[in-house]
Amino acid sequence: MQQTTLVIHGGAGTIVPEDMTPSLEQAYHQALQEALQAGNILLQQGKEAVLAVKAAVESLENNILFNAGKGSVFTHKAEHEMDAAIMCGKTFKAGSVAGVKYVKNPIELAYAITQKSNHVFLCSQGALDFAIQHKVPLAGDDYFFSEFRYNQLQAIKDTHQVSLDHNVKIEALLKDKKFGTVGAVACDVNGNIAAATSTGGMTNKKYGRIGDSPIIGAGTYANNATCAISCTGHGEPFMQAVAAYDVSCLMEYKGFTLQQAMQQTVHQKLVHQIPGEGGMIGVDAKGNFAMDFNTAGMYRGVITNNGINEVKIYK
Amino acid sequence: MQQTTLVIHGGAGTIVPEDMTPSLEQAYHQALQEALQAGNILLQQGKEAVLAVKAAVESLENNILFNAGKGSVFTHKAEHEMDAAIMCGKTFKAGSVAGVKYVKNPIELAYAITQKSNHVFLCSQGALDFAIQHKVPLAGDDYFFSEFRYNQLQAIKDTHQVSLDHNVKIEALLKDKKFGTVGAVACDVNGNIAAATSTGGMTNKKYGRIGDSPIIGAGTYANNATCAISCTGHGEPFMQAVAAYDVSCLMEYKGFTLQQAMQQTVHQKLVHQIPGEGGMIGVDAKGNFAMDFNTAGMYRGVITNNGINEVKIYK
Repeated sequence: MQQTTLVIHGGAGTIVPEDMTPSLEQAYHQALQEALQAGNILLQQGKEAVLAVKAAVESLENNILFNAGKGSVFTHKAEHEMDAAIMCGKTFKAGSVAGVKYVKNPIELAYAITQKSNHVFLCSQGALDFAIQHKVPLAGDDYFFSEFRYNQLQAIKDTHQVSLDHNVKIEALLKDKKFGTVGAVACDVNGNIAAATSTGGMTNKKYGRIGDSPIIGAGTYANNATCAISCTGHGEPFMQAVAAYDVSCLMEYKGFTLQQAMQQTVHQKLVHQIPGEGGMIGVDAKGNFAMDFNTAGMYRGVITNNGINEVKIYK
Repeated sequence: MQQTTLVIHGGAGTIVPEDMTPSLEQAYHQALQEALQAGNILLQQGKEAVLAVKAAVESLENNILFNAGKGSVFTHKAEHEMDAAIMCGKTFKAGSVAGVKYVKNPIELAYAITQKSNHVFLCSQGALDFAIQHKVPLAGDDYFFSEFRYNQLQAIKDTHQVSLDHNVKIEALLKDKKFGTVGAVACDVNGNIAAATSTGGMTNKKYGRIGDSPIIGAGTYANNATCAISCTGHGEPFMQAVAAYDVSCLMEYKGFTLQQAMQQTVHQKLVHQIPGEGGMIGVDAKGNFAMDFNTAGMYRGVITNNGINEVKIYK
C-alpha cells in the first residue's frame, strides 16, 4: 500500500524548554496538530499532495503563533510583506509570491499562480494586482495586527537590526521568533509529492528584502523522482546554498536517501560551507520523511496513514 | 599559468541569418566585443572575476541592442522593471534585484547589495530605496525610452501575450527579442570565478513577474569548486529546473565536466523533463568554458589570456 505522509514545520530557532510555558507549549502542539489534520483529511480522501500542503500551510497561516499570514511580523515601515511558494513534484508546476500585502493566505495566491498564470514568480504590487483580479481573499491591516508583533518591531526599529545578532535584550524578546516561517510537504496516495512554504520574513526588514521561502530550489522544491522540501531558517545562506535543490541533487546524482541528503545539506553544507541556521522537512514518493535542523529546536509534526502522528518542538 | 577566461551572452532565441542584416550583425559583433574588452582589461590587471563580470554586463546594459539596462523592454504599464544578479564563487556572496525601476545599471545595484547589505535579494520599491540610499546611479524614463521597444509593446499590448506563442505577425517583429537577457562569467588570475546576469524581462509583462535571471541557482550561480553560470531563456522553466545549480550539482555530485554538465541540463533536462528554450554560459576555476543553447542562436563571446577571442551568433 502506498504510504501517505504529511510533514509540517512552524519555524526553527533558539527554541528551548526554559523559555516555554506549559500553556504556550500546549498552544503550539494544538496548532501543529490542527495543521496536520487539515492536510491529512485531504490525503485520506485521495486528494493530491499539492492540495494537502496548501491546506496545512493555510492552517498555520491562520494561527497567530507563527510568522506567516495572520501572524506575520512587521516590516520597518510597520507593514506586512509576505512571501510564499508552492510546487507540485509531478508536474513541476510552481507558484511564488514575494513582498505581497493584504493577502489573507499568501499560499493561496501562490497556488492561484500555478493554476491561472503562465508565470512562476510574482512580486509586490503586481502580485496584489493578480490576487485582486483572481479574487484571492484579502484582509486589512487590522487582521494582521497583533500587539505582540508590533512590540517586537518597536523594540528593534531604531537599531537597524533585522535579526538578533548579539543584543541580549532583543534576543530575550524575540528568541523563538527569529525563524517563524511555516511549511508543509506531503506524499499522496498516488505517490505524488508537493511542498509549500509561507513567511512574514524578518521583523524590521527593509528594502523589499526577499528570503529563501519563495525561491524555487532554495526554500521550496518538489520533484517526484527525488523529494519535496520546505525550509525554514536564515534565508540568505539558504539561498546561497540553494538548499532545497541541493537535497534533491544529492539524491538524484549521488544516490543518497532523503535522510542522508538532508543530513548532508543541513549539518555539512549549512554548517561548514555556507553557515546558516535553520532546518527543513522533506518527503519522497514512497512516503519516507525527514525533519532536520541545526538549531536548538524546530516546531514540527508528521502524520501518516500507517499510524505515525506526532508533533515535536525540541531535539 | 592560470588561464583567465571571460564569457558573455546577449540572449538566446530564434536568431537566424535570414532575419539579420549585415549592418545589424556587425553592430552585435561590435557590442559583444566591447563587452569582452570591458571585462578582460580588468582580468588582465589581476582584478577579481566578480569585477570583470560586472564590467562586462554593464557594457551590455548600456547598449540599446540588448534587453537589459538601457535597452530594457516595456512592461504592460509601459514602464521598465529590471532584474539582475551577481555571485562570487569564492565567497558565495550574492546580490539580486527584481522589478527595479530607474536604476541605470541594475548589475551595479546587485553588486552594491553584496558589499553593503546583509541581504541577498531586494525587490521593487524597496530595491530602489536601497539604490538611492547607497547612491547607485539612476536614470529617468527618457534614458530607457526607445521607439523600437515602445513599438514592440504597442504590437502586443492588447493581446495579453507576454511572449511570442504562435502569432506570426508578432513573431516577425520580435523574433530575435524574445530572450535578450545579458550575462557574463569569468575566471580570474587567482582561479576565482563569478557570474552576473541582467534583464529587462519580457515585453508586456504584468503582475510584477520575476524571471530566472535574479534567482540564485536558477539564472545565476557561482562556486569555485564547480562552475559559474549565467542563463538566458524562458525564465519559468529555468526556475523550475533550477538550471544553473543543476549544472553545478552534476559536476559536484556526479563528476561531470563543465561541458558534460551543461550539455545534460540544456539538452536533456530543459528539453525532455522541463521544456524550456534558452541557453547558458559557464566557466570553471581552471578557466575552462562552455556555451550551450537549445535555440537557433545565442549572442555570445569568449576571451582568454591564451589567444582565444571570438564572438558568435548562430550555431
